[in-house]
Amino acid sequence: MEKKTDVVIIGGGPAGVVTASTARKYYPDKSITLMKSIEHGCIPCGIPYMFSSLENPDDNKLSTDPLEKKGIDVVVDEAISVLPDTKIVETKNGDTYSYEKLVLAVGSEPIIPPIKGMDKDGVFPIFKDMTYLNEVVEKVKKKKKVLVIGGGFIGVEFADEIATLDGIEVTLVEMLPNLLANSFDKEFSVLAEEKLRNRGVTVIKNARVEELIGNDHVEKARLSNGEVLSVDSVILGIGARPDIALAKDAGLEIGKCNGVLVDEYMRTSTPDIFAVGDCSCKRDFFTRKATSVMLASTATAEARVAGANLYKIKVVRENKGTIAVYSTYINGLVLSSAGLTQQSAEKEGFEIIVGEVEGVDKHPGTLPGASKSKIKLVFSKQSGIILGGQISCGMSCAQLVNLIGVAIQKRMSATELETLQLATHPYLTSSPTQYPVVLAAQDASGKM
Amino acid sequence: MEKKTDVVIIGGGPAGVVTASTARKYYPDKSITLMKSIEHGCIPCGIPYMFSSLENPDDNKLSTDPLEKKGIDVVVDEAISVLPDTKIVETKNGDTYSYEKLVLAVGSEPIIPPIKGMDKDGVFPIFKDMTYLNEVVEKVKKKKKVLVIGGGFIGVEFADEIATLDGIEVTLVEMLPNLLANSFDKEFSVLAEEKLRNRGVTVIKNARVEELIGNDHVEKARLSNGEVLSVDSVILGIGARPDIALAKDAGLEIGKCNGVLVDEYMRTSTPDIFAVGDCSCKRDFFTRKATSVMLASTATAEARVAGANLYKIKVVRENKGTIAVYSTYINGLVLSSAGLTQQSAEKEGFEIIVGEVEGVDKHPGTLPGASKSKIKLVFSKQSGIILGGQISCGMSCAQLVNLIGVAIQKRMSATELETLQLATHPYLTSSPTQYPVVLAAQDASGKM
Repeated sequence: MEKKTDVVIIGGGPAGVVTASTARKYYPDKSITLMKSIEHGCIPCGIPYMFSSLENPDDNKLSTDPLEKKGIDVVVDEAISVLPDTKIVETKNGDTYSYEKLVLAVGSEPIIPPIKGMDKDGVFPIFKDMTYLNEVVEKVKKKKKVLVIGGGFIGVEFADEIATLDGIEVTLVEMLPNLLANSFDKEFSVLAEEKLRNRGVTVIKNARVEELIGNDHVEKARLSNGEVLSVDSVILGIGARPDIALAKDAGLEIGKCNGVLVDEYMRTSTPDIFAVGDCSCKRDFFTRKATSVMLASTATAEARVAGANLYKIKVVRENKGTIAVYSTYINGLVLSSAGLTQQSAEKEGFEIIVGEVEGVDKHPGTLPGASKSKIKLVFSKQSGIILGGQISCGMSCAQLVNLIGVAIQKRMSATELETLQLATHPYLTSSPTQYPVVLAAQDASGKM
Repeated sequence: MEKKTDVVIIGGGPAGVVTASTARKYYPDKSITLMKSIEHGCIPCGIPYMFSSLENPDDNKLSTDPLEKKGIDVVVDEAISVLPDTKIVETKNGDTYSYEKLVLAVGSEPIIPPIKGMDKDGVFPIFKDMTYLNEVVEKVKKKKKVLVIGGGFIGVEFADEIATLDGIEVTLVEMLPNLLANSFDKEFSVLAEEKLRNRGVTVIKNARVEELIGNDHVEKARLSNGEVLSVDSVILGIGARPDIALAKDAGLEIGKCNGVLVDEYMRTSTPDIFAVGDCSCKRDFFTRKATSVMLASTATAEARVAGANLYKIKVVRENKGTIAVYSTYINGLVLSSAGLTQQSAEKEGFEIIVGEVEGVDKHPGTLPGASKSKIKLVFSKQSGIILGGQISCGMSCAQLVNLIGVAIQKRMSATELETLQLATHPYLTSSPTQYPVVLAAQDASGKM
């Protein structure tokens, strides 16, 4: 069937959904079609919590019903080719959709490492498909010895969550010397490790999985350090790569990060085609290098830029590049990071000064529920501009990292941060005399 | 005795303590004396929590021991006069202190309303003196019917806390039609009221206390609405006024807010004398009018400016005025406010647009511990600049108001906020598709 619609969005994840709802807001007269290949998508960051925290794992479904209520046409079908000259999308079901504006929000695909035995039963990559994920959850719950490969956010959160299930031993294997190494300096990584160990997770670092052994089903894992682990299931948490198959076929330019190349307004090299989220290349906020940050929060920020600016640039993008702003939650500990770590800043050639402070997240520190907190801010030594921040604390710092993220995006100086006006409250924050961002900025100032 | 010291700071509250520690950092070679009239001061915002939350009420002490460890001379004595011509402070103990730089951080005194019977036993104003406060706590714990006068932050927090004690009935009387009226629009005030009522507090609005009745001890309170309450103790939570006695005697200029007049760097009209915290006049961030904001967080921000700039302006003040950024916590509900409310903005003559959104502070919303959240942002209609924000939610929004505070101080626009890059996490924030600050900014944008 030949269909005609003004805007076609390919992808039903957070990037696609937010592009659609934003476009609807800014272009109420345009017809919009969102095409998704998976009937029931999921909230990506919620996947680990399907194992135990969510009473009903199906609550992690990412519904497109609200879009349909806004008059957006949602179709379950897979785009198999994009023809930029005639402005047509061809689908697996044999339909064609003509468009004025096309948005690729096709996401990423999990990296399957070239390890021998990776195809055995009991090995689970993380696909963002609720039907598949519900099956994985059901299967893993019946296991006894789960191996998680990868000590980044995904791996750490899966390990922490699965270890709460009775009768399951969890081992996490990371090839680098530290967990969460992309986003945290060592002194924060060790806190994550300690929390995992307290939860009963066996953490093995500096080791790769070299082979998965077994008949049809995985039974053992041989590591590069010579260890052989007895396992009955494996979760792959080693990251993802941009899904660029469709874009490549359509002749779109691919960027150095191996994602679709886009400009400031998420426009690809081909007129009237946009790309947002995991499938697109980002430009690093600090260096302008091509980079890939695969976070739903980043994807939705891009989706808002694309959705608002499909026909005319209405919403001027204020932040000239992408920073990673993350939080994770491990066995009661919140770890957050925004921008550059000390290690990544030094690696990029920045001359830096670090401000650090430890404290308590309530005041007085003997109030019920108080947790220790620790913060590290990284500044340019000469210009005094903030480059990054890392925090560990209790639930209270959930949003503190976003304050630091704003400070980075507004290129605030240590001076501005040390004279900031803030809210404090006994139950909610450290004391006004000890507010961590202010003291860490002051600490850095003193060294400049 | 005649003593000589480079810097004299009068006041042992948060403003004095932070001025001293900041001055020590920036002027390591200067001798610094901090003079406090009360031996054991307290953490001001922690006072309500001495009744029940703190197992040991004495934990609310604000210690000056850390200052002494840094080589600051702490003396318990009361300054009775300042002689600017000879640069000398005279004290109650009969000592004199000569200074190069003097900082007044003498704070405020509780307002004692001119109500008949106010001098009866069982009526407690809130003085920031631990010895006194410990007595108040002991006495109130033995009472049965506590009346709290005033429905601002102080009154609301005392009422909420005292109501957790077994066998005590608490009544709160507020003269305005809404609680917390200075910092919240009505739709947020009603949430506070609901939480107090759930806690068992009787809330009476639109009423003044006109007389406290009893022999020596308070037994009844007669209200302006005709009601007569049976009470056995009264807490005064109706605010404070700058303590300017010393400043006035010394001939310092007093500002329109009835606090000590200071410039951008907290310098008074008299050379080498600074004033910080509750005793000094602030300049409103939005209008430049004289205003008084009595928050420890504001006081410490000023103290950092003064302490760093006593001899030379080393730390340039970036924010050209004071905004109030508050949080309070009532029976599990966090209520936060930064900058102007809709009501206060309209009263000041701003043409505004409001962005509002409701949601959940975790995602999926069925995760354990998820709370509803509600946010309202106030923008200038034409220029799009943020003027204020109000939030209600669970513990997670403790720091969210500080993000809004930074946005106000950096004069961010709705466009910047709707394209902000943020961290989200299932356990810690609402979903990336529903991040409240972003959606509220988008809501406002759509109306501009």
